[in-house]
Amino acid sequence: MTQPAALTEIWRGPFMESAHVGHAVICDGSGQIVTAWGDPDAVVLPRSSSKMLQALPLVASGAADARGLTTEQLALACASHQGAPEHVDRVNRWLSDLGLGDDALCCGPQVSRDTDLKIEMIRAHESPCRVHNNCSGKHAGFLTLTQHLGAGPNYVDPDHPVQRACLDAFETVTDQASPGFGIDGCSAPNFATTMHGMARAMAWFATAGQRSDAMSAAAARLTEAMHTHPQLVAGEGRACTRLMRAAKEPVALKTGAEGFFIAILPERGLGVAVKAADGATRAAECAIAALLVRLDVLDAEHPDVMAFLNPVIRNWDGLETGQIKPAPGLLA
Amino acid sequence: MTQPAALTEIWRGPFMESAHVGHAVICDGSGQIVTAWGDPDAVVLPRSSSKMLQALPLVASGAADARGLTTEQLALACASHQGAPEHVDRVNRWLSDLGLGDDALCCGPQVSRDTDLKIEMIRAHESPCRVHNNCSGKHAGFLTLTQHLGAGPNYVDPDHPVQRACLDAFETVTDQASPGFGIDGCSAPNFATTMHGMARAMAWFATAGQRSDAMSAAAARLTEAMHTHPQLVAGEGRACTRLMRAAKEPVALKTGAEGFFIAILPERGLGVAVKAADGATRAAECAIAALLVRLDVLDAEHPDVMAFLNPVIRNWDGLETGQIKPAPGLLA
Repeated sequence: MTQPAALTEIWRGPFMESAHVGHAVICDGSGQIVTAWGDPDAVVLPRSSSKMLQALPLVASGAADARGLTTEQLALACASHQGAPEHVDRVNRWLSDLGLGDDALCCGPQVSRDTDLKIEMIRAHESPCRVHNNCSGKHAGFLTLTQHLGAGPNYVDPDHPVQRACLDAFETVTDQASPGFGIDGCSAPNFATTMHGMARAMAWFATAGQRSDAMSAAAARLTEAMHTHPQLVAGEGRACTRLMRAAKEPVALKTGAEGFFIAILPERGLGVAVKAADGATRAAECAIAALLVRLDVLDAEHPDVMAFLNPVIRNWDGLETGQIKPAPGLLA
Repeated sequence: MTQPAALTEIWRGPFMESAHVGHAVICDGSGQIVTAWGDPDAVVLPRSSSKMLQALPLVASGAADARGLTTEQLALACASHQGAPEHVDRVNRWLSDLGLGDDALCCGPQVSRDTDLKIEMIRAHESPCRVHNNCSGKHAGFLTLTQHLGAGPNYVDPDHPVQRACLDAFETVTDQASPGFGIDGCSAPNFATTMHGMARAMAWFATAGQRSDAMSAAAARLTEAMHTHPQLVAGEGRACTRLMRAAKEPVALKTGAEGFFIAILPERGLGVAVKAADGATRAAECAIAALLVRLDVLDAEHPDVMAFLNPVIRNWDGLETGQIKPAPGLLA
């Protein structure tokens, strides 16, 4: 097996204090690898980076159109949002449109990652709801498809029609059988694939507009929804949102737990997958920024890019103590 | 350079989702390596794992005795406490004894990591103080030495007599010249050494009771203070505290930022240093627990040990989704 490659360096003063290794693959629309770092055959759980794959059946089945879902709702179906009012209010309205409440969501409750709302809720002695979970938009999508299919309420069961449809879509676009799944933070199955499989899926999304089948049409709509509403895919201050806004062309970017990040580049017909082998978000954010600078999708001098490509590390007193840097091999 | 070795595995369902590599060295009192994983010559910043080295001049100079410091205060001088009332109240009293206030501390303010106090302060609209900083005990020690030496207030300046004394102690016990320093989270210089140097220093502490010089006497007192007051070294629920309490014999354990962990084992005359190359705390906690199980200092079946050696990973809904495990090479 090919060893993981250097991705990201953590500097403090004159010392590289820590270093992250991992895998990265850039694929074209034919499914061929354009460039790779580390092991393209590494088996990975893409976690929330696969949300747009999990949203494919919602759109391709006709459920989204039957319910009149907006592009905002499609973006939320692909989101790891931070539970800010702009996210929570929209998902609550979506649930209400379905005639459902917070208890219909199978994801657990999560404390809002929006600082103001979190503090407001603590002061009001309010407990977090399931709708605050970063995956609640995805789950609202699952519920929409569940109703469309007339299926039962436990839509996170791997044998539920919604999850069977997700697996079918996942294997179609990764173009390989999934070797299994883990249970995700939100209780839905998260299907495994290889780094090559995930990058191939992202390139399949990037080239979806060139094809006319229902699944490709769904992929093109989801990609467009994501880059049309970057603030709904993550939220103010977060990497997906800031980097999508900073991009020189329409792209869809999505983080995943345990150091995953993907990019869908429709204007180039390319897909990118990054996995920090140790699961570090700071490494994946820096590495995806570096690869997008390399591809000239991002400008290395843009402040929203520098915030992830070369962020300064500050201590409790606000002093600059170090810096995060991409490994030289990613940029060159 | 020797590559980092496997330390810790992160499993989700049937997949090893992430993996941590790093360095670990066990040293004896003669400074010889007993066992090593990864690169003993790797240059590292031991961060808060070096706090007992930074407290050596406080005791060896006579400042601690001149001020009548208790073993609780010596434990706090070596602590990364979580800013619970038991820590904050003691440091506030210490500052008061010195005739000083919160503003004399050169560490920045840090939100308390004690959940109840954090929530109480949010509800009371109170901002965190410097005394809540996990390093405030170390800084109270620096201030005590500063007064003893009649030195100026900026005791974190690398040229201040306190920091010059710290560097001298650091180089004495690591038995090598430090190649430099980085600025730590609390604004004090953090001196660099090698993994071998740090493990050697820990073995020097472990055997300090066998020697009669002032620095060794100081080391023995600091080690005893740490294992006498494990709740002051970190706090309820935290790795240092739980593992010191669970140990079959008196040991001093100390975490450090960016994946550092050390152990001082006086009954065996051994010192241990661990560094997760990627900086992950979860990896260092699991690896130090594994090495202490290997050495029969910890019982692998003890619940406080299992909480770091083999912790279950649960999702937002409380479901078990995976597990953290030590790499087989650490235990065997």
